[in-house]
Amino acid sequence: MRAPTENPLAAGLPDLAADIISRVRRKRPRVHCLTNAVAQSFTANVLLAAGAAPSMTIAPEEIAEFVGRADALLINLGTLDHERREAAVIAIEAASAEQRPWVLDPVLVDRSRPRAEFAKALIARRPSAVRLNSAEFAAIAGTDYGREALERFAIDGHCVAALTGATDLITDGVRTASIENGDARMAQVTAMGCAGTALAAACLAVEADAWIASCAGLLAFAIAGERAAVSARGPGSFAVEMLDSLANLDGDTLRMRACVR
Amino acid sequence: MRAPTENPLAAGLPDLAADIISRVRRKRPRVHCLTNAVAQSFTANVLLAAGAAPSMTIAPEEIAEFVGRADALLINLGTLDHERREAAVIAIEAASAEQRPWVLDPVLVDRSRPRAEFAKALIARRPSAVRLNSAEFAAIAGTDYGREALERFAIDGHCVAALTGATDLITDGVRTASIENGDARMAQVTAMGCAGTALAAACLAVEADAWIASCAGLLAFAIAGERAAVSARGPGSFAVEMLDSLANLDGDTLRMRACVR
Amino acid sequence: MRAPTENPLAAGLPDLAADIISRVRRKRPRVHCLTNAVAQSFTANVLLAAGAAPSMTIAPEEIAEFVGRADALLINLGTLDHERREAAVIAIEAASAEQRPWVLDPVLVDRSRPRAEFAKALIARRPSAVRLNSAEFAAIAGTDYGREALERFAIDGHCVAALTGATDLITDGVRTASIENGDARMAQVTAMGCAGTALAAACLAVEADAWIASCAGLLAFAIAGERAAVSARGPGSFAVEMLDSLANLDGDTLRMRACVR
Repeated sequence: MRAPTENPLAAGLPDLAADIISRVRRKRPRVHCLTNAVAQSFTANVLLAAGAAPSMTIAPEEIAEFVGRADALLINLGTLDHERREAAVIAIEAASAEQRPWVLDPVLVDRSRPRAEFAKALIARRPSAVRLNSAEFAAIAGTDYGREALERFAIDGHCVAALTGATDLITDGVRTASIENGDARMAQVTAMGCAGTALAAACLAVEADAWIASCAGLLAFAIAGERAAVSARGPGSFAVEMLDSLANLDGDTLRMRACVR
Repeated sequence: MRAPTENPLAAGLPDLAADIISRVRRKRPRVHCLTNAVAQSFTANVLLAAGAAPSMTIAPEEIAEFVGRADALLINLGTLDHERREAAVIAIEAASAEQRPWVLDPVLVDRSRPRAEFAKALIARRPSAVRLNSAEFAAIAGTDYGREALERFAIDGHCVAALTGATDLITDGVRTASIENGDARMAQVTAMGCAGTALAAACLAVEADAWIASCAGLLAFAIAGERAAVSARGPGSFAVEMLDSLANLDGDTLRMRACVR
Repeated sequence: MRAPTENPLAAGLPDLAADIISRVRRKRPRVHCLTNAVAQSFTANVLLAAGAAPSMTIAPEEIAEFVGRADALLINLGTLDHERREAAVIAIEAASAEQRPWVLDPVLVDRSRPRAEFAKALIARRPSAVRLNSAEFAAIAGTDYGREALERFAIDGHCVAALTGATDLITDGVRTASIENGDARMAQVTAMGCAGTALAAACLAVEADAWIASCAGLLAFAIAGERAAVSARGPGSFAVEMLDSLANLDGDTLRMRACVR
């Protein structure tokens, strides 16, 4: 990956992130999550640890009402059964009708063509942000991942595109930031990435600038991961420490540890 | 909330709770849980920690057989999809046919009218106990929460009504107890309330007096939460400590810490 | 249970297990899990802790593609709803077409006759291995559990049969080993057995001899459980320690603690 050029906006992100995280704690935004079966519990716990209020129903009959009373929506495609497929469209329509921000996490679209097609159809409905890794990007964009390709993807989709990996790259096509925080152990816990996207959704609920909100959520999550790694003895204790770390994350730690360009 | 009047029955509850919790450990009652997708795993672990034997299938084809071999049934409406809706009715019929106690937890009925309607229809089938918070109570009872309204609800429904919050209030319409134990951190872990209701179901499996059983389950759960809070450093470690605390809860701790009126 | 006779093959199993566990870490096999709703998250975390790469979708539309790209398949019947029932057959056909090993875990077939019938129909499709406890064995084999009955079951089914309990007995009908490792606390955590079977599936992905692979997975899992019990203070911390223990398990510990005959 080409190193991002110097980005004058990046310098302000740690302060903005600290402010947004404290707004989440104060406002307790409702985040409705249509997420995969494996991630539901950890995602809800991450949102609660950050101070947000999760709801998780996937039933097509009631999801519109839940989304209508929520401040942001997460759509995660990790286990894409009949009911979730139907509910996703209803939920997105409800969010759009109420002008609520929504975030798409097209998990493992590289393993299933129908899932990739479904993800593309959802992106046409204009999510505020899309989070993906390089394999998922390639499956959706039809081209290998690179910074320019990601920026093009954001411009075409009118959304923030967040490419997560050893380095996270977040762009709205015009502004691009790279985050080098985080810990390798985050990949050893199921639903860790899914929960990070949920935190970004909580940030979108309290911050209108989707690029800043996405950067704030992913930065705070990565730094919480670094802090958790200090006392973890393996992936089991890491997951526990992650929740504690997120609940106890303060602005000073965020500003001191942020590695953003 | 009006403070409950002096209740001579309350004084006996800690001893009764200690006895019921030890009966759960000894008899290992089977508790079938039709619960929401987010709560399934934590609920099963809470029941196992308390010494009960959980089963969790939601499939309409087999739930009657599971309930028929169980000692109590929990119905939790937290994620109310097609299949759970269908299975709930079958499960309740099976429990009623075998005269097994069953408990209803109408989670978030205040967020969805169809869910509130469904909850009312289930209450007409006479659960042994219903657990709800004040917003859920208002959505079902159609009136604001207050002690008299709760007692009326219990009388009309021929059930125990347990209103949980900073103070838990448990009534069968005639006998009313308030429990002031617990810890604020319990609200920071997903499915904590759901799991507390499951413990009440386990107590109903070994104690025929539904009011005493409900009080015992909620009291033991709240005190386990207090103990867990002592060593927790955040919501992640709190959830872990909660399970350890419940498994290690002894009668002396229960009697010493109980704050029941 | 009759004690197994001296088994010269057993002496080699700890070394083989150490090698297989390190192969799992090195090759990171993909294991697709069609497992019950309660077990999904813990199972994924156990596989990640062991170094494998889990995928968990249950959707009939996409499971064939996931299985086709996986190195092994787990079928667990713990919550047997419509969709899982349909997906199981599709997944097994995909695994068979690609000659991928697959493992069956017929959880709680003793509680539901339709589930037992379904399990029998799946066994006719020739899993590489079947894991069950004595009640599940009786429900499927139609005869009480005993060593000869288990060996007969393995021969008739052309599979490895792994009977788990205080002692695990693993046979392909010709070779039989018994493992006396493990800890009673493993039964106090939901999905512990399910996750152990998933680890066996990961071992089958890197070792062609299904009996050796099954023995390796169950032995490593049981020893990880013993190590976890050393520092656990209850079932909550035990589950956390189990994941840490599995991630940190080394060949020396495995060889030193193995109690195999």
